[in-house]
Amino acid sequence: MAKPLILSSFLAVLLLSLSPLSLESAPGRRLGSSKRAPCFFGKFSHPHTNKLSNPRNPKYRYDTRYFDQRLDHFSFADLPNFPQRYLINTEHWVGPARMGPIFFTAATRGILSGSPTTPASFGKSRLALVPWSSSPKLSIMSLKHRYYGESMPYGSRDEAYRNATTLAHLTTEQALADFAVLITNLKRNLSAETCPVVLFGGSYGGMLAAWMRLKYPQIAIGALASSAPVLQFEDIVPPETFYDIVSNDFRVRNALTFFFSLTTFHRESTSCFNTIKESWDIVEAEGQKKNGLVELTKTFGLCRVIELNDRKLERSEDLSDWLDSAYSYLAMANYPYPTEFLMPLPGNPIKEVCRKIDSCPDGTSVLDRVFEGVSVYYNYTGEVDCFELDDDPHGMDGWNWQACSEMVMPMSSTRDSSMFPEYNFSYSLFEEGCWNDYRVKSRPTWITTEFGGHGFKAALKIFGSNIIFSNGLLDPWSGGSVLGNISKSIIALVTEKGAHHIDLRAATVNDPDWVVEQRAAEVKVIEGWIKDYYQEKKAVFDM
Amino acid sequence: MAKPLILSSFLAVLLLSLSPLSLESAPGRRLGSSKRAPCFFGKFSHPHTNKLSNPRNPKYRYDTRYFDQRLDHFSFADLPNFPQRYLINTEHWVGPARMGPIFFTAATRGILSGSPTTPASFGKSRLALVPWSSSPKLSIMSLKHRYYGESMPYGSRDEAYRNATTLAHLTTEQALADFAVLITNLKRNLSAETCPVVLFGGSYGGMLAAWMRLKYPQIAIGALASSAPVLQFEDIVPPETFYDIVSNDFRVRNALTFFFSLTTFHRESTSCFNTIKESWDIVEAEGQKKNGLVELTKTFGLCRVIELNDRKLERSEDLSDWLDSAYSYLAMANYPYPTEFLMPLPGNPIKEVCRKIDSCPDGTSVLDRVFEGVSVYYNYTGEVDCFELDDDPHGMDGWNWQACSEMVMPMSSTRDSSMFPEYNFSYSLFEEGCWNDYRVKSRPTWITTEFGGHGFKAALKIFGSNIIFSNGLLDPWSGGSVLGNISKSIIALVTEKGAHHIDLRAATVNDPDWVVEQRAAEVKVIEGWIKDYYQEKKAVFDM
Repeated sequence: MAKPLILSSFLAVLLLSLSPLSLESAPGRRLGSSKRAPCFFGKFSHPHTNKLSNPRNPKYRYDTRYFDQRLDHFSFADLPNFPQRYLINTEHWVGPARMGPIFFTAATRGILSGSPTTPASFGKSRLALVPWSSSPKLSIMSLKHRYYGESMPYGSRDEAYRNATTLAHLTTEQALADFAVLITNLKRNLSAETCPVVLFGGSYGGMLAAWMRLKYPQIAIGALASSAPVLQFEDIVPPETFYDIVSNDFRVRNALTFFFSLTTFHRESTSCFNTIKESWDIVEAEGQKKNGLVELTKTFGLCRVIELNDRKLERSEDLSDWLDSAYSYLAMANYPYPTEFLMPLPGNPIKEVCRKIDSCPDGTSVLDRVFEGVSVYYNYTGEVDCFELDDDPHGMDGWNWQACSEMVMPMSSTRDSSMFPEYNFSYSLFEEGCWNDYRVKSRPTWITTEFGGHGFKAALKIFGSNIIFSNGLLDPWSGGSVLGNISKSIIALVTEKGAHHIDLRAATVNDPDWVVEQRAAEVKVIEGWIKDYYQEKKAVFDM
Repeated sequence: MAKPLILSSFLAVLLLSLSPLSLESAPGRRLGSSKRAPCFFGKFSHPHTNKLSNPRNPKYRYDTRYFDQRLDHFSFADLPNFPQRYLINTEHWVGPARMGPIFFTAATRGILSGSPTTPASFGKSRLALVPWSSSPKLSIMSLKHRYYGESMPYGSRDEAYRNATTLAHLTTEQALADFAVLITNLKRNLSAETCPVVLFGGSYGGMLAAWMRLKYPQIAIGALASSAPVLQFEDIVPPETFYDIVSNDFRVRNALTFFFSLTTFHRESTSCFNTIKESWDIVEAEGQKKNGLVELTKTFGLCRVIELNDRKLERSEDLSDWLDSAYSYLAMANYPYPTEFLMPLPGNPIKEVCRKIDSCPDGTSVLDRVFEGVSVYYNYTGEVDCFELDDDPHGMDGWNWQACSEMVMPMSSTRDSSMFPEYNFSYSLFEEGCWNDYRVKSRPTWITTEFGGHGFKAALKIFGSNIIFSNGLLDPWSGGSVLGNISKSIIALVTEKGAHHIDLRAATVNDPDWVVEQRAAEVKVIEGWIKDYYQEKKAVFDM
């Protein structure tokens, strides 16, 4: 019988490091005023000089393995298996005899993709720094989500993404079954059937973690679902939620107001908010003028294209989407310290954006102000020569498919409550767009049928256990997540000043107290799950 | 706010009537000594004079409807939808305003098949007899499981059962998703989203009910899973369990010993048990003699075939399977009163079989005794001219496919503990047979991965709620079910003298007290679920 873990000393380090899906795979959202399709975070966000610059930890060791995975778990259709990539570290694991815990996470884009960031992303957990000698040891593993990175069916990305038929099995339920099959097999191979598994995930990965705990309670004893918008479907939350939160983040407070309470924020300066709010009509009007698209191209420093008469823009909506994307990402990445994940950003980046917008000399035009502002996002290092509006290297990304097929998250915006243009989400337009793009028929009510919709929280009151929904209220996705305790063991940990799954980010010396406290609370809860599991096992053994 | 139901007066009537999957769809089992494939109950059990003779209740009204169902819920493959048949009665339903409960069941073979038994099987619930005026009213609905009866993909049974590709989507997970989609749609159409749904099922239907509650807690508030062998997979229970229980049922007690406790049974007469035990070798030896198969054909009254030189038997193993099938079915149908479901049988039929076997004049051969015994099963009415060994009209039944593909239930028998021949289940032989029959690769570890295996009960101790596992210990499937309480609200109701889901059978005046009490206990528990749900809803409304 293994003794209970004393996790607090090292779980904190792990928690903040397993940032599996991270920002780049935030769930889909409506784009700007004209686009109908949600897109994963970042599609419109890459300046062409963007460089990935994750810290490395070459000392951290892990095994890269491939699992022969079934493409369709829920039918017996004769389809080819695919190699699913996963990383595993059992170096410090206490092993099955002492029921050493296994911490599991899933990755979609970026991480584990085989790029130079792979070891860094995994290694960021800095497990080598953990005082292992004083604690039972963990095994950690990270699985690459099907159709992402090297977990590619049909032999190659080109084949897997060829059409709706080959993409057909890129679904959440199949992904969860992948986890179940891999974990079950791995535990069997390690004779570790009794070892407790804990799931971690942020953003879409957080949704997977929560749903995995609900659908496969026998596989994992609990889940930390950070910034997981499991309620951002149909009309469970108002469709304006996301853009309203983004907008509120731009009703910016000065340094002093950081010491005030949340209710104080909304009485702060709204000049930044108002400038952005004014800009959309101006962009649209400018685009309709003679030479307007050329002028916009110049004003916003877009890369010029000779064939288009020295302009980049084909229509002003593309610029609006580019701006929208920046604001939404800034709201997600509105961290209190400098970050460098997809984009190098200063700490409290929205404050910096608004400082730029508000501090322009009198007489500066709205568009020049806005350009100054978004440059904080697109060009904080000052290294960008010109901006590409869309440099998605694949053209057809996995998340876009998922958002079009089953992960349909309706999003609108109003002029009343947001700084964005009026936009009313239309299912018919959405579905038409998805049909045109992918030849797929959207199933907007499927996710709520499979995982729960309006009755989700009520059902969980008497069902399920051991889930933490963690959120920061600055994160625009928080509005679609669970912000209150559901039961004794399905709980919400909310920070007022947190952005998108900050708790899963790597720890820094700049972490404010509220992040440290949030993680400590998570550690305590997870420690409790594991202790309870051991006690339960003991009871079973004693029987 | 609806007031709590007072169910006890009428739920009993309903419970014992919604016998959805009934005996004929009992899960697969090993056949005799030679066959490798499990088969649904009854494939080898039809004498050609068998007549269905369900009681009718023409006064009971229901609507027959079809739902346009997706063939593959878990992928976006371009497959044709199929019409899924269901019956619904909302005649006495209190309706959504008072959150009237909806009782749901699924049917596989037989029931709802469009045969003349359809209205009777559904109507057996005798709801017309219920004192509706004093209670809030139920809506009840029964869905026909995909690939059974008229719920047939690809336009016809012939097309649906053509090959492994067309059968590929006959899986348990797809069936559960069918329920989820239909119930969700129906509730939406009826504006009945807040109405509590309770699931009922017996045998495979009981497994579906339990798993549905686990996988879709937001869809149904609870499930009564009667005789549901959810643990009859891999090595969770010993593979000998089923045949050991059948055998114990044949260690028959005389009338007096019915008043003794269970432990007394095993000291009763074993002459019947021993006679059957001796018979297998004799059948085999006889089959190897010159003209042995002709003699066996005569001894067992098999229908003769001219082309086979006046014999029916092609090999003695087929006769053994026929005998095995009778004993196993008798154990399942070992009810205390006469029944007429697939076969007309007397009350306590095994006692009758053994009375026949034991009361033959001295000098009667073992085979003649055994024939006298199984005639109770195959020819209780005395109307059978001759016996067909296998008259399955379809040749390829849905359950056989399911048992070969994912519902792999390994079953063995030993001479030590059973009256059956030695048989060691072999996965490789099993899989080879399934490949030959269906060109399907069995996935024997999938069900436990999807729904839980060894850790099933431990996981449910801290997860899930509101499931009744009801069993009778005479039922050979009880050994693979849940026989002890798992948690406060996942409970076991066990009767010593019950056979296969007797609690779901129609009430009779002959019901012994223990059946009446079992049903009363179920009613009380289900009533509690509904009361709790209403209280919970009130709490939500008050918030």
